[in-house]
Amino acid sequence: MTRSPARPTIPPERYAERLAAARSIAEEGGIAALLVGVGADLRYLTGYVAQPLERLTMLVLPAGGAPRLVVPRLEALPARGSIAGAAGLVEVVPWEETDDPIAIVAGLVRESVGVSREPVRVAVSDRLWAMFVLALQATLPEADLGLASAVLRRLRIVKDADEVALLRMAAEAADRVVVAIAGGPLVGRTEADVAREVHDRLLAEGHELAEFAIVASGPNSASPHHEASRRVIGPGDPIVLDIGGSLGGYGSDTTRTLWVTGGDPAMGPGEEFLRIHELVQAAQRGATEAVRPGVACELIDAVARGIIADGGYGDRFFHRVGHGIGLEGHEDPYLVAGNTGPLEVGMAFSIEPGIYVEGRYGCRIEDIVVCGVDGPVVLDQAPRELFVVDG
Amino acid sequence: MTRSPARPTIPPERYAERLAAARSIAEEGGIAALLVGVGADLRYLTGYVAQPLERLTMLVLPAGGAPRLVVPRLEALPARGSIAGAAGLVEVVPWEETDDPIAIVAGLVRESVGVSREPVRVAVSDRLWAMFVLALQATLPEADLGLASAVLRRLRIVKDADEVALLRMAAEAADRVVVAIAGGPLVGRTEADVAREVHDRLLAEGHELAEFAIVASGPNSASPHHEASRRVIGPGDPIVLDIGGSLGGYGSDTTRTLWVTGGDPAMGPGEEFLRIHELVQAAQRGATEAVRPGVACELIDAVARGIIADGGYGDRFFHRVGHGIGLEGHEDPYLVAGNTGPLEVGMAFSIEPGIYVEGRYGCRIEDIVVCGVDGPVVLDQAPRELFVVDG
Repeated sequence: MTRSPARPTIPPERYAERLAAARSIAEEGGIAALLVGVGADLRYLTGYVAQPLERLTMLVLPAGGAPRLVVPRLEALPARGSIAGAAGLVEVVPWEETDDPIAIVAGLVRESVGVSREPVRVAVSDRLWAMFVLALQATLPEADLGLASAVLRRLRIVKDADEVALLRMAAEAADRVVVAIAGGPLVGRTEADVAREVHDRLLAEGHELAEFAIVASGPNSASPHHEASRRVIGPGDPIVLDIGGSLGGYGSDTTRTLWVTGGDPAMGPGEEFLRIHELVQAAQRGATEAVRPGVACELIDAVARGIIADGGYGDRFFHRVGHGIGLEGHEDPYLVAGNTGPLEVGMAFSIEPGIYVEGRYGCRIEDIVVCGVDGPVVLDQAPRELFVVDG
Repeated sequence: MTRSPARPTIPPERYAERLAAARSIAEEGGIAALLVGVGADLRYLTGYVAQPLERLTMLVLPAGGAPRLVVPRLEALPARGSIAGAAGLVEVVPWEETDDPIAIVAGLVRESVGVSREPVRVAVSDRLWAMFVLALQATLPEADLGLASAVLRRLRIVKDADEVALLRMAAEAADRVVVAIAGGPLVGRTEADVAREVHDRLLAEGHELAEFAIVASGPNSASPHHEASRRVIGPGDPIVLDIGGSLGGYGSDTTRTLWVTGGDPAMGPGEEFLRIHELVQAAQRGATEAVRPGVACELIDAVARGIIADGGYGDRFFHRVGHGIGLEGHEDPYLVAGNTGPLEVGMAFSIEPGIYVEGRYGCRIEDIVVCGVDGPVVLDQAPRELFVVDG
C-alpha cells in the first residue's frame, strides 16, 4: 500500500454556500421547499452521512426560511455532530419513537410557506422511498411533489477543486489495486476470491467503502454486470475487472481487461480478441479526446459508438458510454444518446465502452474523466493495454 | 472460525407459492398490480438479488396476469439466472439504454388491467425511489398508488422453517464474533479498528455482508447509534457492541455490553453501572419471556419499559424495544407503543432494551427472538452478563 497524502476536507463555509445556492435556485424555480432524505443530496448539503433507516431523517429546506434537520432521537447526536449541524447551519429537530415524523415535516413546510389551498411546489430527493413520498402526499395534500434534482442537479453536477481532488485520490487508489491484481496470481482462484482481494485492497488504499468488484472471467466477461462467482480462473481466460467504491465520499470506478495465459504461450488471446481490445481502446481514447466544454453529452457516446460500429461490432456495444460520478457512483451527467446537454468544466464521468460476444468473451476499458477548460482531465492512469497475466 | 453446516436453500417452488399468494392477496384487496423495485420484496418474490441502480428494475405482478421482470438489458443475464428467472416463474423483459422503462411498465399494467378511466389501485414497493414513483404517477395517471406492504407484509412477516434456519445461522455466527471480540485485547485500540475486526470476522463466519458494527466506548456508549470512531479504548470504559449483517440474505443483529478493566481491578464498573446492566438484563429477559402468539407487539415493549421505569431509568430508555428482522435488518413487526398487532408464530424480531446516561455511559442487550407456538425461541445464545475484559 502506498501512503496517501492527506485528504482535502470540505469546509463548513462550502456547505453554507451550497445551502444558500439551493434555496436561491428553488426560489427562482418557484419551489417552496426541498425535502431531502438520507443519501447523497443530504451529504452534499450538510455533510451528514446518515444511515438509510425506516425512521425518517429529512432536511427541510424552505426557499424562504431556516433549514431544519428532522431526525429520529436516536440519531440526534450524530446529526448534531455533522458538519452543518456542528457549524450551526441547520437546526436539528429530533422526533420521539411514537411521533409521526411526516406530520412534523408537514408542519415545518406549512410554518414557512403558510397554509395554502393552492398547490405548493415541493421537491423531494430523487431517491426518497415510496413509503415517505406517499405519506407526504397524504399528509400535505396541497403539495405538488417534484424531484429535488430540479434544484440540486446543476450544483452537484459540477465538481469544485476539492471534489476533483477526492475523485483523483479515489481513482489513483483504484488504479493501484487494478495493477496489483493484474500482477497475479490468478490461475486456480475463483472470481469471488479475487473480488475479495479487490475489496480488501481498496480498503487498504483508503477507501471507506469497496462497493463492487466485477471479476468476469471466460464467457462471464460477456456479461457487463456479471457478479463474481465461484468460477475458477484458468489459462486462456479473459477477465473484465471493473472495481470501485468511495473515498472521502467520492467514487472510484475503473475497468481494465486482462488475459490469463498461465505462462503457456499457446493460451494467449486470439486474433479476434486482440482486435476487439484494440477497438475498445481506440473507442475509449477517441471518446476521451472529444471531451471539452460545450460538447453534447451524447456526442461522447456517439464517438465511441462510431468507432466500434466502424470496426463491425456496433451491436455488441449495447450500453451507454458513461455516467457521472461524485457522491454517487452513478449520477448526472449520463453520456447516452438523447442527452443533448452540454459538458461543462468540472463535470466528472466515466468513459467505458465495451464489446460483448455472448457465450465467448467481452472487453471493457473505463476511466474517470473530468471536463477541463481545454479538454479532458483523465483521473485514472493505469495502463489501458491488455494486461497479459502469466500466473 | 467454526465451519458452518450447509445453508438451507429456498427452493423454486417456494417462490412460485409466494408469487401466487401475493397475487391472491392483491386480488382480495382490490389491488390490480404490484410494482416491485430492487430490494427485499423483489428478493422475497423472485430470489433475484439486484443492485440498486438508476436504471429501473421492476417486477410487474398483475393480480390477474403473468409476472414480468422488467430489467435493463445489462442485467438481463443475472435476472434470467435468478431463481424465479431460471425456473421460468417470471418472464424477463429487457429494455435498451434509450428506452423509457417506466413507459414499458405502464404498458404492461395496462395490458393486464385494461385501459381505465377509473382509478386503478396499484401497489409499489415501499422503498421504491421517488424518481420512479413520480414518473409512474405521471405516466400512469389512472393509477392510485399504494404501498406493496399492504400485500406483502403478512407474507414476509411470518418466517418459514428455512428462513428461521438462516436467521439462526446468522445469529450463531454473530454470537461467535461477539465472544471473540470480548476475548480482547481491546485496550489501546480505536473503536474503528475493533469495528474492522468485527467486519472481517462476520465475513469469515459466513456472512456475505457485514453492514454494521457499533463499537461505542466510554461516553459514546450513551449514543445508541454511535458510529465507530477514532476514540482509543482504555481501562474503565464500557463498550456497547452492536453488530450484524446478513447470511444467505437473512439478518443478524446482536448487542452485548462490555467493560474494559485493562487488568486493573480499580478500573472495574461502578455500582451504578452494574445496577443499570442488571436492570437492562432483567428487562431483556422479561420482555423475551412475554413473547407468545396473540400478545400485542406493544406489550413486549411495555414489559421492558416497565421494568426499567420501576428501576428509576424510564426516561433513559428512549427507543422502541425491537424491530422485525428477515431479508431486511429492520422490518415488520416493530415492537413499539402503538403497535397493537398480535405476535404470530414465525415472527422474528430483536428484543433490545437499553439505558443511556448522556455524557457518561450506556448499556444495551439484544437478541433475535422468534415467536414459537408456546413462547419465545431465542436465536442468540452468547452470554448476556456484562463481559469484563482484562486486556
